[in-house]
Amino acid sequence: MKVVLLSGGGGGAQFARGLQDALAPGELAVVGNVGDDLEVLGLHVSPDLDSLLYTLAGLIDEERGWGRAGETWNALASAAAWGGEDWFRLGDYDIGLHLVRTRALREGARLSEITEGFVERAGLETRILPATDDRLRTRIVTPAGELPFQEWFVERAHRDEVDAVVFDGTGDARPAPGVLEALDAADAILVAPSNPYVSIGPILAVRGIRRALERRRVRCVAVSPLVGGKAVTGPLDRMLRRMVGGTTPSHVARSYKGLIDALVIDEADAPAEAPVELVVAQTLMHDRAAARRLAEVVLEAACG
Amino acid sequence: MKVVLLSGGGGGAQFARGLQDALAPGELAVVGNVGDDLEVLGLHVSPDLDSLLYTLAGLIDEERGWGRAGETWNALASAAAWGGEDWFRLGDYDIGLHLVRTRALREGARLSEITEGFVERAGLETRILPATDDRLRTRIVTPAGELPFQEWFVERAHRDEVDAVVFDGTGDARPAPGVLEALDAADAILVAPSNPYVSIGPILAVRGIRRALERRRVRCVAVSPLVGGKAVTGPLDRMLRRMVGGTTPSHVARSYKGLIDALVIDEADAPAEAPVELVVAQTLMHDRAAARRLAEVVLEAACG
Repeated sequence: MKVVLLSGGGGGAQFARGLQDALAPGELAVVGNVGDDLEVLGLHVSPDLDSLLYTLAGLIDEERGWGRAGETWNALASAAAWGGEDWFRLGDYDIGLHLVRTRALREGARLSEITEGFVERAGLETRILPATDDRLRTRIVTPAGELPFQEWFVERAHRDEVDAVVFDGTGDARPAPGVLEALDAADAILVAPSNPYVSIGPILAVRGIRRALERRRVRCVAVSPLVGGKAVTGPLDRMLRRMVGGTTPSHVARSYKGLIDALVIDEADAPAEAPVELVVAQTLMHDRAAARRLAEVVLEAACG
Repeated sequence: MKVVLLSGGGGGAQFARGLQDALAPGELAVVGNVGDDLEVLGLHVSPDLDSLLYTLAGLIDEERGWGRAGETWNALASAAAWGGEDWFRLGDYDIGLHLVRTRALREGARLSEITEGFVERAGLETRILPATDDRLRTRIVTPAGELPFQEWFVERAHRDEVDAVVFDGTGDARPAPGVLEALDAADAILVAPSNPYVSIGPILAVRGIRRALERRRVRCVAVSPLVGGKAVTGPLDRMLRRMVGGTTPSHVARSYKGLIDALVIDEADAPAEAPVELVVAQTLMHDRAAARRLAEVVLEAACG
């Protein structure tokens, strides 16, 4: 059994852990979003890949939902005192990882091989694959102008309305080594309950990946990130209303037009109609066990 | 009154603080060694400039003699766990400063202006000037081969005997902005009780600085770093014995031939003879008050 999950961080990473728990070791490969990667204080930060790594390895701060448990913040406080920026929160343990990655990138290593090294050191059998090793960056078109993703999301706390989401670098971005092979070999392809525009969108913006999904010979099942038409966290409900006029399962399904065979929606959103098969489940992942139960439902929907 | 001090870190930095305490605000400029600068985990580290900054600003760990008081070590531990090196001890607060400096250097700023910014943020009126903004690196010639300074000093704990100290980059290294102006305007030039070969040597390896000392029209007074012919810390006594055959004040004075008018030696080394005037004092800086008393003796010897 081989399963490939497309995922952002946050809820996507929690779902990835549910899948990891539900599957046998080595059966899962996660293709992670790199559209929100950024440089902070000269460090290359890959927020979604790191959320996946930390969550799958049990290092994540469960309360906060990002960064490491038991984190300290002294380097960032010091950097700010010496004139550096501190709008993007980087903890000390987290910085240790960014230092190793940033140096390796400067020495010419690819993000995918660096990530593979981290996964190995974390003792994981799940693979984490960046969607691309090439530079692909999400930009948010707002009434205030076009903003880099993290400036919109973190620095301006996603207060600006979103008119469109665009990607820099889609022309050149090729799937990272292993991504197409994993999709080709998959018995099921899943899409995590992540934001379709800013978390899954950048993955699908890599042409080879979108094409592989369009030409799939196995089922692809997405999990809706909405519960009762509302985002659990983040601005997705506002984005959907403004960009496609609503937050029903049908509005969500349209984000994945031609790419999925079924959409798993929460009980709070049923009954509903959509251009794809709908599967109703409890999608809120209150804890690790709930994430595993959801994963089992989704696997059932994908593999029968 | 304008005083310029040439200094390494450690004891040199303690002496610099003694001078800062003894002089009026703004009277002191310290020209710091950059020969031991290095890149660790992709960060540009300037150990001696930072020891000067931390000591003068009251941030130094007094017990350890380097790095910041109340330091934590989580980023380094994390970097090591993810595959980075940890032979060079960088604390979290310290890393905050290195991040800001490294990014500024990558963006094209000069080390001298970055250092000036740090000095300003620390609220210091003493100036800290890197000897040069150009790349000048100390290398140690040992029976085991030629080693970069920090590899010899930290990684191999200066166990290797030293046959010679050489500098990469002396051909191109120009004094940093402000250094020659400070030397020209000085009423006295002082040399801290630092290692003449590896702390003061790289400063004097900048041709313009050596020339300015040779042509000085004011007195230049050095403080011997030896007490009773022994190094307070570090390998200087072994270096002197092997390279010039002894550790008397005369052996120390020869390191500064033509550059100093007087050498301040410890009571434990008197009486002695040397090719320059000798001034006897208590040179051990047990505490900040002792450093200030020594500074007053040295200023008296320099200015009369």
